[in-house]
Amino acid sequence: MSSGAPVKPIRIRGAPAAGGRLPLLCAPLVAASRDGLLAEAAAAVAAQCDIVEWRVDFFGEIGNTAAVVEAGTALRAVLGGMPVLFTRRSAAEGGEPVPISEAAVLELYDEICASGCVDLVDYEMSNGAASVKAVRDASRRHGVGLVCSYHNFDATPPLPALAAEFRRAQAMEADVAKVSVMARAQGDVLALLAATQQASRELEPALIAVSMGPHGALSRVIGFAFGSALTFGVASGASAPGQLPIAELRTGIEAARKALGS
Amino acid sequence: MSSGAPVKPIRIRGAPAAGGRLPLLCAPLVAASRDGLLAEAAAAVAAQCDIVEWRVDFFGEIGNTAAVVEAGTALRAVLGGMPVLFTRRSAAEGGEPVPISEAAVLELYDEICASGCVDLVDYEMSNGAASVKAVRDASRRHGVGLVCSYHNFDATPPLPALAAEFRRAQAMEADVAKVSVMARAQGDVLALLAATQQASRELEPALIAVSMGPHGALSRVIGFAFGSALTFGVASGASAPGQLPIAELRTGIEAARKALGS
Repeated sequence: MSSGAPVKPIRIRGAPAAGGRLPLLCAPLVAASRDGLLAEAAAAVAAQCDIVEWRVDFFGEIGNTAAVVEAGTALRAVLGGMPVLFTRRSAAEGGEPVPISEAAVLELYDEICASGCVDLVDYEMSNGAASVKAVRDASRRHGVGLVCSYHNFDATPPLPALAAEFRRAQAMEADVAKVSVMARAQGDVLALLAATQQASRELEPALIAVSMGPHGALSRVIGFAFGSALTFGVASGASAPGQLPIAELRTGIEAARKALGS
Repeated sequence: MSSGAPVKPIRIRGAPAAGGRLPLLCAPLVAASRDGLLAEAAAAVAAQCDIVEWRVDFFGEIGNTAAVVEAGTALRAVLGGMPVLFTRRSAAEGGEPVPISEAAVLELYDEICASGCVDLVDYEMSNGAASVKAVRDASRRHGVGLVCSYHNFDATPPLPALAAEFRRAQAMEADVAKVSVMARAQGDVLALLAATQQASRELEPALIAVSMGPHGALSRVIGFAFGSALTFGVASGASAPGQLPIAELRTGIEAARKALGS
């Protein structure tokens, strides 16, 4: 593309996801039940998403590892080859509170990576270096990619702080660095995009960059032009403020692509 | 709208143009002949533009004031109420060389304002304070709006320099401040949008902000979210690098508007 900001694709077991299409359209799955999860997955397939994010912090049986793996296996069958990003979003970074300890979460990540039913896992950097290393080791052992993430639902930190979060993800050996921050004014989206572009030039990992809320929603459409490889849209249920329906997202990206002549 | 950046409308003889629709879609008219000009105007009407910019530096008979006024009168008839921005773009800022002196250009501006066949005139600030004042006086005397403009076809100056150009337009008593600069990297569009948002908060004039070239083309679609009241698109002939067809521009703006929830 002509943007000057190289967009590194997110790789799934060695190959660029969706044949290298950028940005990937990702639908969050936020059901509490196995049946709800499979219904959301079917909606993601119908909406022709490229990938789903299973937000397991919403899943009622998160404390039962066998049930999680069984649901993950059923999910695979419904998705028919569409890759799965597995995420327990911590309550501290906007997720649902879960009834299990962080040690149990780490065991769950290990088991789900071993099960073969997910392709990427997302883990917050705020959990600390030791925990991130445990997830990094487990994911690497089983050929699963690691997204190291930073979320801020209150505000958009200044550009140097955003850049530092992207760098921190690289230092933690992430395959994908994710920064998702709340826009409180229209200008905040510009800081996020500038930090993303800088990271796309300087760092190794693929990037996911999100400016949340109404003032940030443009980032979901044009972020790819600044280096973001994946954008979240709604197939059935939203997981963060400002997410657009997948079809609108696709229309907007197509219009932006035409504007960029790519 | 929800952007937090107030977009001041461009006013035509006291009332917001196009009933206050933002951004205005403006087609440049770049014909050398009277017939060509009227054909381009008809294309602008067919494309449902909101306003046209008559780039008189392309007009073969620019040296014959009576012919310019006659063509302008014929233009009015074809446009059926669509307002006209009249512009002699100087060669120093990317326009066509013209065979008349700057003093003759000032006389032409005076005559065309008096004729009643244009609603706004654009004049480059680089022509100097005395000349801008002459155009300001003539335009004000006849109820015509003044766009004070700055163009840079080489590069995007740093944000403080962009902000200074917007402020200079206000100091010259512009009704509309226009800054149009070449993007040499994708990040340049962010600097232009940030300067525009700042100006929309701090200054009085309506704004036109353009990031030119492929790396800047997104500004033509999303600039309104940062305070730009008008965007240029192609109905028949382009006047600057990166201009999109009016229909694509409209689709992109609509998609951006949905993303912004406005």
